Amino acid sequence: MNIRSFLIIFAMSSLLHSEENFGIVVHGGAGVMSGLSEERQQQIHKKIQETVSEAYEILEKGGSSFDAVELAVSMLEDSPLFNAGRGSVYNSDEVQEMDASIMDGKNRLSGAVASVSTVKNPIKLARKVAEETKHVLLVGEGAERFARDIGVDIVDRNYFYHEERLKRLLNSKNKISKLNENADKIGTVGAVALDKNGNISAATSTGGMTNKMPGRVGDSPIIGSGTWAQNGVCGVSSTGHGEFFIKYQVAREVCVRIEYLNEELSDAAESIINELNDLEASGGLISIDHKGNISAPFNTKGMIRGSQTNKTDLISKIY
Amino acid sequence: MNIRSFLIIFAMSSLLHSEENFGIVVHGGAGVMSGLSEERQQQIHKKIQETVSEAYEILEKGGSSFDAVELAVSMLEDSPLFNAGRGSVYNSDEVQEMDASIMDGKNRLSGAVASVSTVKNPIKLARKVAEETKHVLLVGEGAERFARDIGVDIVDRNYFYHEERLKRLLNSKNKISKLNENADKIGTVGAVALDKNGNISAATSTGGMTNKMPGRVGDSPIIGSGTWAQNGVCGVSSTGHGEFFIKYQVAREVCVRIEYLNEELSDAAESIINELNDLEASGGLISIDHKGNISAPFNTKGMIRGSQTNKTDLISKIY
Repeated sequence: MNIRSFLIIFAMSSLLHSEENFGIVVHGGAGVMSGLSEERQQQIHKKIQETVSEAYEILEKGGSSFDAVELAVSMLEDSPLFNAGRGSVYNSDEVQEMDASIMDGKNRLSGAVASVSTVKNPIKLARKVAEETKHVLLVGEGAERFARDIGVDIVDRNYFYHEERLKRLLNSKNKISKLNENADKIGTVGAVALDKNGNISAATSTGGMTNKMPGRVGDSPIIGSGTWAQNGVCGVSSTGHGEFFIKYQVAREVCVRIEYLNEELSDAAESIINELNDLEASGGLISIDHKGNISAPFNTKGMIRGSQTNKTDLISKIY
Repeated sequence: MNIRSFLIIFAMSSLLHSEENFGIVVHGGAGVMSGLSEERQQQIHKKIQETVSEAYEILEKGGSSFDAVELAVSMLEDSPLFNAGRGSVYNSDEVQEMDASIMDGKNRLSGAVASVSTVKNPIKLARKVAEETKHVLLVGEGAERFARDIGVDIVDRNYFYHEERLKRLLNSKNKISKLNENADKIGTVGAVALDKNGNISAATSTGGMTNKMPGRVGDSPIIGSGTWAQNGVCGVSSTGHGEFFIKYQVAREVCVRIEYLNEELSDAAESIINELNDLEASGGLISIDHKGNISAPFNTKGMIRGSQTNKTDLISKIY
């Protein structure tokens, strides 16, 4: 390296460091969002704001984006309002099968679980896979066994029981209500964050689709499709019709367009969501780039989302 | 579209069509390949040549690349020589858990299965997931149930039994032989093909790693990591240390570099395998582009591979 290159790089890194941008964005799923009562909307706003606030506090104190996204997603998993963890929808066997993934953009450390039924917080188990095994993805009974061995919280099936969702499954099976089925297809939760050290992380968790086939796995636990984080580029968590999000590698596609085509975050994020719309694939995504910019496009009527950065105030939105 | 653009596109497509390039490339895994007797090497060459020949015949007669890669992978699954289907290695529970995926570059139709234990040809089940469900990925017991429902061949566990591999597992558990464990980590099979209609397909199948944790899923069934096919760009099937291949999205990365950076196939394929080598992630990949060029780089001592195109003769190689 000659002295000129060195000085330029030194100046650039000082500039980047002096900014110390940081922030968090979360989502609670995209969908038609029709028939949400005023009361339910208030509950959703409250939970999203509480989640963003607590995760932001981690970042503000100099904590890691990996910790922030894990906390945010686990808080949304604990709420019955979202289709993940406690609020997960029923598959065609009338059980919940949950998927989750997490990625640290510093070193591409990744962990994911799919088709687990007894784990209270699939995102915490995904992190354990990343940090305590040589693997990235564990599925089904093997993942459950790992959960028991490692001591994450295991819950009784009644923990997930939800009368309204069970009714929705039965309606869906009887084809009484196509609308509800479509409404329920979507509703994953996720979080992406940038910390003061420039580390980007992303995490996603879902109960999948109502009346899905047992063993069906969507994009949420797939690194590159549902979740992607890459320092210096961006972090993404997506939500929507998972099969399309796999075939279009949505989460990484946003980062690829920034990295290889020099697109701005919002252009990259919006264009892929528009392309999916042309294919009648519904959904959305949340994303943050290495400068702390946020983009959260969706092609559905609504997407539950919230964010806070060192440059922008706490917000939560549904439509 | 103005008349000039139309004429240019018309001229280009006639040119492409007049070429009618087609071909197939297969792999039987990358690894140290030490201690392969002369006899074993001859058996491998014979099976690879037979497989390439039969798949090539499909393409020569005007058949689809989707059919060609499914046939090629199922033939390698049926052979005990490779770590997929019949020859799959044992996990730490002394059972085989197999993964497979297939993708059609024409329309991104994709199917995959993970962690199946009783299916004779996981690649055929993956194709059924693509064509007969709305899903992309089915795992574990749900995938097995779908297999039974749809009538693909189910086999007794004895079908997979292999004394030498069981011994290897027990050695691996007793840590008698670290070398063998490493040798066994790799050995996936795969195929990519371009047919006369310009359709590119890719397929991958594996038994995973000896002594892996039950439920561990590597890159082979992950669309974008183990398998990718995109008409007009390229098709890829990868083999190696699966966790790294997920974190670097190897299969799609080759196509992304062609699509967005205008790299040549061989540059794109070789550079990602070199990058993995720098990370001490061993493996390789096979790839074909829309012009019928083939690239099959690996950073291990050997990679079992073979190919034939309308421009190049049938070959098979190990080192």
